[in-house]
This record gives sequence, structure tokens and C-alpha cells, in this order.
Amino acid sequence: MDLGLLAIGVGIVALSLLGAGLGMGMAVSKAMEAVGRQPEASGKINQILLVGLAMVESVAIYGFVTALLVIFVLGAK
Amino acid sequence: MDLGLLAIGVGIVALSLLGAGLGMGMAVSKAMEAVGRQPEASGKINQILLVGLAMVESVAIYGFVTALLVIFVLGAK
Amino acid sequence: MDLGLLAIGVGIVALSLLGAGLGMGMAVSKAMEAVGRQPEASGKINQILLVGLAMVESVAIYGFVTALLVIFVLGAK
Amino acid sequence: MDLGLLAIGVGIVALSLLGAGLGMGMAVSKAMEAVGRQPEASGKINQILLVGLAMVESVAIYGFVTALLVIFVLGAK
Amino acid sequence: MDLGLLAIGVGIVALSLLGAGLGMGMAVSKAMEAVGRQPEASGKINQILLVGLAMVESVAIYGFVTALLVIFVLGAK
Repeated sequence: MDLGLLAIGVGIVALSLLGAGLGMGMAVSKAMEAVGRQPEASGKINQILLVGLAMVESVAIYGFVTALLVIFVLGAK
Repeated sequence: MDLGLLAIGVGIVALSLLGAGLGMGMAVSKAMEAVGRQPEASGKINQILLVGLAMVESVAIYGFVTALLVIFVLGAK
Repeated sequence: MDLGLLAIGVGIVALSLLGAGLGMGMAVSKAMEAVGRQPEASGKINQILLVGLAMVESVAIYGFVTALLVIFVLGAK
Repeated sequence: MDLGLLAIGVGIVALSLLGAGLGMGMAVSKAMEAVGRQPEASGKINQILLVGLAMVESVAIYGFVTALLVIFVLGAK
Repeated sequence: MDLGLLAIGVGIVALSLLGAGLGMGMAVSKAMEAVGRQPEASGKINQILLVGLAMVESVAIYGFVTALLVIFVLGAK
């Protein structure tokens, strides 16, 4: 079995985390901007931001679990 | 059977999560901006945001299920 | 039969989900912006958004069904 | 017959769905923006959007039918 | 005959549909923007949009017919 190709596969899996990281960063950056404009709305912003980030987080977890499965399920053979 | 190529295949499947993560991040970031401009509309924004994120989440789940199927159905042969 | 190449094929099929995820995210993000500008139009926005997302969802389902067919029809041979 | 290369071919066919998904997302996102600016025009916007999305949908269906043909016509030989 | 390479060829042909899907999406999105700015011009916008989409549709049909020809004419030999 070619462990090198397996590692490249895990790498491409992990690249999917790139989208989640970038997306979360965009969301948080706009939240900062919004609080900077309307500080009195920081409670509502925080609440919606957390729900949104949790949804993006779920996508990141899918990528992470996929990477673990490739390492432990395919790598164990 | 070449497990290395299989792992690369799983990786390319997982790359589809990149679009969902980035798309969700864009949606949440604009929701932040909207709440920052109209805090009193945060209830409506939150409601439409959740429906939209659930639709994007379904696309992420399609990608995740496909990755699992490649690992367990093709990987078991 | 080369399962590795088959898995790479499934991966490229699944990449089509990237467009649907990103496209939906763009649609939801602009819906957020529109509700932030015209909260009283949120009913109409929500209605048109749902029809639009359902159309994009159909494209995502085409990609997902194609991936399943490759795994189960071609993978069974 | 090389099923692996056939699967990669199906994958490249399915990539054409990426354009339809992204294109529809762009169309819906601009429709959201337009309704946010002119809520009273939502009827006209919805009507033109649906005709446009149906045209893009036809392109997605061409790609999906081509993928099915490759799987079942070429894959059956 | 190498059916795998034939399938990859069909795939590259079908990639041409990506441009049509994306291009139609761009056209519809700008039509949405235009109706949002000038709702009273929606009749003219709709008319020009339909002519434009029909032209792009013809390009998509060329790609689809080419893919069918590769599958049925070359694939039958």
C-alpha cells in the first residue's frame, strides 16, 4: 500500500476546511463591523453569529471526520 | 486494490464541502451586516438565515455521505 | 477493476456540489442584505428565495444521484 | 474495460453541473437584491427569475442526462 | 477499444455546458438587477433576456448533441 498517496488524499480532504475557516472569518469580520456601527445591537449580533458559526462548524467537522476515517479506516488496511 | 488513489478520491469528494463552508460564511456575514444596519429586523433575518443555511447544509451532507460511501462501500472491496 | 480511479471519478462528480453550495450561499447572503434594507419585504424575499434555492437544490441532487450511481452501478461490476 | 477511467469521465461530465449551480445562485442572489430595493416589483422579478432559472435548469439536465448515458450506455458494454 | 478514454472525452465535451450554465446565470442576474432598478421596463428586459438566453441555450445544445454523438457514434464501434 502506498502511504504517500494516502497522505496526499488526507491532505486534499483537509483542504475542505479552508472554506469553513475562510467563511467563518468573513462572518466574524462582518460581525465586528456591525457591532462597531451599532454597539447597542451587540447582543442580537452575538446570538445570530453563534448560530451561524455553529452551522459552518458542522461543515468543518464533516471534513475533519472524513480525514480521520481516511487515516484510521483506509490506513489500517 | 490501490488504497492511495481511493484516499485521493475521498479527498476530492470532501473538497465539495469547501463550497458549502464558504457559502454559509458569506450568508452569515451578510446577516451580520444586515442586523448591524437594522437591529429591529433581527428576528426576520435570523428566521430566513436559518432556512437558507439548512438548504446549504443539505448540500454539505450530500458531500459528506458521498465521502462515507466511498470509504466504506468502495473501501470494503 | 481499478477501485482507486473509480473513487477519483466519484470525487470529481461530487465537486459539482461545490457550485450549488457556493451559489446557495450567495443567494442567501443577498437575501440577508435585502431584508436588512427592507425588513417589511421579508415575506416576499423569503418566498422567492425558497423557490430559487429549490431550483439550485435540484442541481445538487443531480450531482449526488450521479455520485451514487457511479458508486453502486459501476462499483458493483 | 476500464471502469475507473469511465468513472473519471462521468465525473468530468458532472462538473458541468457546477456552472449551473453557481449561475442559478448568482441569478437568485441578484433577484434578492432587486426585491430588497423595489419590493413592489417582486411579482415581475419572480416571473422573469423563474423563466431564467428554467433555462439554466435545462443546461443542468443536459449534463445529468449525459452522465446517465455514460454510466448506462458505455458502462453496459 | 478503450471505453474509459471515450468517457473522459465525453466528459470534456460536457464541460462546455459549464460555460452556458454560468453565462445564463450572469445574464439572468443582471436582468434581475435591471428590473429592480426600473420595474416599468420589465417587459423589454424580459423580451431581450429571452432572446439572449435562447442564443446561449443553442450553445448548450451544441455541447449536448456533441456528447451524444461521441457516446452513440464512436461508442458503437
